Order: sequence, then C-alpha cells, then structure tokens
Amino acid sequence: MDALKLKEKDTIRMTESNLRETTVAIFEKMGVPKDDCRLAADVLITADLRGVASHGVSNILQRYVGFYKDKLVNPTPEWKILRESPAVASINADGGLGIIIAPKAMQIAIEKARNVGVGMVTIQNGRHLSMASYHAMLALKHDMIGMCMTSTMPFMIPTFGAEPRLGTNPIAVAAPADREAPFVYDAATTVVANNKVTLARRMGVKLPPGWVADADGTPIMREVDPPAPGVDRLLPLGSIKEMGSHKGYGLAGVVDIFSGILTGGGYGANNGGKHVCNHCVVAYNIETFMDVAEFKRTMDEWLMMLKTTKPAPGHDRVLYPGLPESECEKEYKAKGIPLHHEVVEWLRKTCSDYKAACYV
Amino acid sequence: MDALKLKEKDTIRMTESNLRETTVAIFEKMGVPKDDCRLAADVLITADLRGVASHGVSNILQRYVGFYKDKLVNPTPEWKILRESPAVASINADGGLGIIIAPKAMQIAIEKARNVGVGMVTIQNGRHLSMASYHAMLALKHDMIGMCMTSTMPFMIPTFGAEPRLGTNPIAVAAPADREAPFVYDAATTVVANNKVTLARRMGVKLPPGWVADADGTPIMREVDPPAPGVDRLLPLGSIKEMGSHKGYGLAGVVDIFSGILTGGGYGANNGGKHVCNHCVVAYNIETFMDVAEFKRTMDEWLMMLKTTKPAPGHDRVLYPGLPESECEKEYKAKGIPLHHEVVEWLRKTCSDYKAACYV
Repeated sequence: MDALKLKEKDTIRMTESNLRETTVAIFEKMGVPKDDCRLAADVLITADLRGVASHGVSNILQRYVGFYKDKLVNPTPEWKILRESPAVASINADGGLGIIIAPKAMQIAIEKARNVGVGMVTIQNGRHLSMASYHAMLALKHDMIGMCMTSTMPFMIPTFGAEPRLGTNPIAVAAPADREAPFVYDAATTVVANNKVTLARRMGVKLPPGWVADADGTPIMREVDPPAPGVDRLLPLGSIKEMGSHKGYGLAGVVDIFSGILTGGGYGANNGGKHVCNHCVVAYNIETFMDVAEFKRTMDEWLMMLKTTKPAPGHDRVLYPGLPESECEKEYKAKGIPLHHEVVEWLRKTCSDYKAACYV
Repeated sequence: MDALKLKEKDTIRMTESNLRETTVAIFEKMGVPKDDCRLAADVLITADLRGVASHGVSNILQRYVGFYKDKLVNPTPEWKILRESPAVASINADGGLGIIIAPKAMQIAIEKARNVGVGMVTIQNGRHLSMASYHAMLALKHDMIGMCMTSTMPFMIPTFGAEPRLGTNPIAVAAPADREAPFVYDAATTVVANNKVTLARRMGVKLPPGWVADADGTPIMREVDPPAPGVDRLLPLGSIKEMGSHKGYGLAGVVDIFSGILTGGGYGANNGGKHVCNHCVVAYNIETFMDVAEFKRTMDEWLMMLKTTKPAPGHDRVLYPGLPESECEKEYKAKGIPLHHEVVEWLRKTCSDYKAACYV
C-alpha cells in the first residue's frame, strides 16, 4: 500500500557503516558479547538495506532494547544442542534473541548439509529472529538452498473462526542463481504482517479489504479503520474461504508444526504472551542433488522468464521474490539508508541514555 | 463452492473394494505390472475415499488411460537413482506415472530419515502424481512428518503479469497425532486448482471473484463465466497484490525450485506441454528431533485447540487440514463411495473396451 511508504521529506540518509556501528554500540550496552553484537547488527542492517524496514533497525531495535531492559531476552544465552543426528539438531536457545541464535543454527545446518545433503535445525525457547530470509540467505554462498520458518504468538484468525489461534508464521526460502539476483522468498502466512496494521494505525490510514476480521470473526471485505491496539484479528493469506483462506491458514499450521511443535518447545498459542518464538532452519546442499553450475544456469533462465513476463495493464514489469530487495540493497549501499527522522532521534537518545557511542 | 458439489441424486455408491478391483483391472490392461497396479489404485481410491474426487478414480483415471493410450506415460519405467547421499536421492522416473514412482521415492526418503533424520528425494522426468498428500501421508505410520511438492505445467499468472508462468504447484504436508486425525495439508498455490474451473465450465456455473485473470492479465474481482477451454489464467493464492498474491506467486516459485529445477529436469514452464511433472518428497523422522509421544500429545492439544476455536457467525465449527477428509473417509468406507453415474458408465465402457474385469 503506497500510503504506508516512507516519504523522502521525512527521512535522513545514513551510511550503512554509521548505522551498523551505532547498532553494535547499543547491543553492547544491553550486555551482549561483542561478536554477537556484530551478528545482531548485521541481521538488522541487512533488513534495512533490502528495504525491509519493518524488520530493520528503524522498526525493531527499539523493541529489542525493551526486551533486554525487561529481561524478556537473555543477552548471554548458554544455548545447547538437545538431540543430534547426521541431518538434524534440536537446540534450546536459552532465551537468546533469534537474530543471534538462528544464524548459528544455520551454520550447523549448513555443515550437516555439506556432509549428508540436508541439514535441519529446530530451536526452542527462542525469541524474535527479525527478517527470516536473512537466515535462509546464509546458505547461498555455500551453493545451498536455505529455508527458515518461525512460529509466533497468535495473530491469525483460522478460516471460519472468531479467535486468533496461529501466528503470522513466516516462511523464507533463498536459492542461488548465477548472474541474476538470488530468489529470496520471505512472507507471513497472513495477508499482511501485523506491523503493517500497526503502521496504518499510526499514520491514520484505512486498511484495504481482506486484511482483518470483525470482532465476531467475519472477514472485512471493505476499507476499514485499523482495529484498536492489542486487537489481533489478521486474516490468513486468501482472506476468505471462497478465495482460499484455508490455504493460508493451513500453511501457518505447517509452520507451527515445523518451527513450534517439532522443536519440543510448544506452539505459538501456548507460549502465553511470553515473546517466545520458536524456529526451524534448513540447508539443502545442491551438489548432492545435481550439478551446481547447471542448477544456477537453470535458475537464471527461470528468473529471466519470470521477470520478462508481459505485464498486465497498469504495471511496468513483473518482479520475482528477492529482485526488488536486491535492487534496493544496491541503491542504499550507494546512497545511504533512509531513516524516518523520529528513528534517528530515538537512536541518538538511546545512545545518550545508555552512554553508547553514536554515529548517526 | 457448493454449486460444484456432486448431487446425491446424480450418484451411485460403490464399495471401496469394487472400485479398487476395477481400477486395478484397468491399469493391468494399460500394461502396468501387477504390484504397480495395486499401488496406483490405492492412490486414486484413497483420494476418492477422502472426498478429493478431483484426484480420484472419478476424475483422473480417464486422463491416465488417455496418457497410456497416447504413449505419454511409460507403463514399465526403468527408473533409476542419479545421485545419492545419506539424506538425499535424485531419481529419473523414466516417464513413469507419479502415482507409482512417488510412493517408491517416499519409501527411500523414509529409509534415509530413519538413518540420518531427514530424507529428501527429487524426481525428474515424472508424470502426474494425483493427490500429493497421499505420498506425504506414507510417512505417518513411521512416526514421521511427510512432505510432497509437484511442479506442473504453467497455469498461474504471476502478480502484475499477463501470461501463465508457473503451475498450480501444490504443497502437501502430513504430521501424525495420537487420538486426533492427522494434520494433512494439501493445496495448490493458485486460489483454486485448475479442475475447479473446468468443472464450473462443464456445469455452466459462474466463477466467484478472485479466481482468474482477464485476457490482459487483470485479476477479475467479480463473478465471471469460466474462460474457454485451454485458456489458463489462474490467479496466485491472494488473488491481487493488495491481498498478498505475490505470496502465492512466490510459493509456487518455491515449489518450482524444489520439485522442478533441483530435480535437474527443468521447471514447469519449460516442459513444453509434454505432461511432465517433476516432484520432491521429504520425510522427517520425529524421534531425531524430540520424544515421539510428546510430539503426538502436543499435536492432539494443538489440533483440539484449532477445532474448538469459537466459530464466526454462519459457521458451525472450525476445521483443520485433514479433519474433513478423515471424516469423509470414515463415512465412505462404511457407506460406499458416491460416483457420478457418468463415471460409472465410463468405467463399464472402459472395462468392456479393454476386456478388463469389471466390478462396478
């Protein structure tokens, strides 16, 4: 929705490096070990660079600082492997932030995939992992396909239901190409992520049809004011049964199974609002399936086919998942990352409050 | 859509066993080896029993007989493993029907999952595999989670596009519970499977909003007559960008990668209408992640939570994927499978044409 986009006049451009060093400094003041601060900052800056501001410094660092302050997240988790086999590991994250634990779990998955073809790691007692595709993309430079799923607190109304039961439960998949930008899928199984509703509320903008349900669970298929804060009635992808909402609902269920129940840490709805998110990351070693060069060549051909599809009236071109994000990353690396001036003020104030070095 | 449902007055009830023996007899006359005939019949009968008539004897056997007659499918494929590692195998199906090759691939995946935790098998040069969840469900009795994806010929218009580029590309996931019916997800990544459009055309029924695009690619958000036969412009799950169609489009892409490109056999759109469908099956061995009894107990609790969700007005209850199919299976096993009288006539004529034993 264009109405939710950041307006250039409200923004200040920051260099990647300045934003990164400021973020590292803030994480250090939360009691997070140095290497973990760099890792955490990389996840958030990558989200900002790819235009996924909802999961970057701009939108989520403030929440994480609150988590650390309220002791909802453990800055020095002693995470450990509970079960392990050649293709599988099951981790207890000891309440560590997902943006720090998930990349480590993905490294384990990659090592296992190198050895046996597939590596899959589940994470219980986890916390928010920001942009799921960050973790999936870690597989790319190893010539692997990566996947990441996370089971969140309930925001989604099941088809025919009147109460939230499943999270926004995103799925991310990243697959390498040769000359083309990699395929990077990253999407909630609700029509929209919850933060878009929050954003619309803050900006006083109406929601389009098909995003949320009424108080009694009836899908709202007209423009509507955003519901009050704390009211979570997002519709599954598909919006209504006649347009396939049971498919979005079912996919959220798949995510709750793989990255909730199978972790041994329960599912989104039984975490009792404790900000627990459980996860699952997978790496698939392409060369165990086929020749890597042929895979990448075919990916190029396929991605080229998708992006050169004849557009429908009113559209300039057809995109594929990961293409606009890759273009955005190039632009922001060159011209800086645009941040809303309120975000910059918050960063400065937070650095001042915690006596952290400030580069913004 | 209720208008597309079979009407009791048009149907004849068949016992599972009579329908199965008739189906076996027809496959035998196609030159398929005896054991493979039983396997093929089991896939189709299971679909009919679970109320998925679109993928059962009633709707698809006629197509398969045509395939064998036109030599588009190999009745005696010499399928072979091209690459193998502890968690992975890549198979060339030698043009064998997916309903026969995919269960064999799944057995390999299950064996690998038993050994190393996860087993994943890709299948190139495959053909139609009917109800994808049949293959995923094979994992259940081994206390494993099963997955199956298949990359089909292009029917789906990408978001913003005007030409079909991706298949209906279904995803199926089956996970076991203890007392509750298993979770069985099985859905195309388009709003509806193509056969629903075909069925609506045959029955002279209009399509609801959000199913198909106009000739220029514009999504049709009003009731509309089904397009002419051979015109494939299905919308991705989500229907329009504002309601998340890029998510359905992207998921179809994920399926094209895993069960198309990664098989080494190409993707749906480059198979040139040759009725090639490539596949991917995966088995996840629950005990390598966590205690199996605890997994099933948690599944029961979670499924119970979903099905006891307070319903929205106009609905009796909330379902979960696999629940209505399981209820249908119980009913049809007891009372027989309802077949449209035209299907029964076709079965009798086909048996007569091919001199096959007929039990219907």
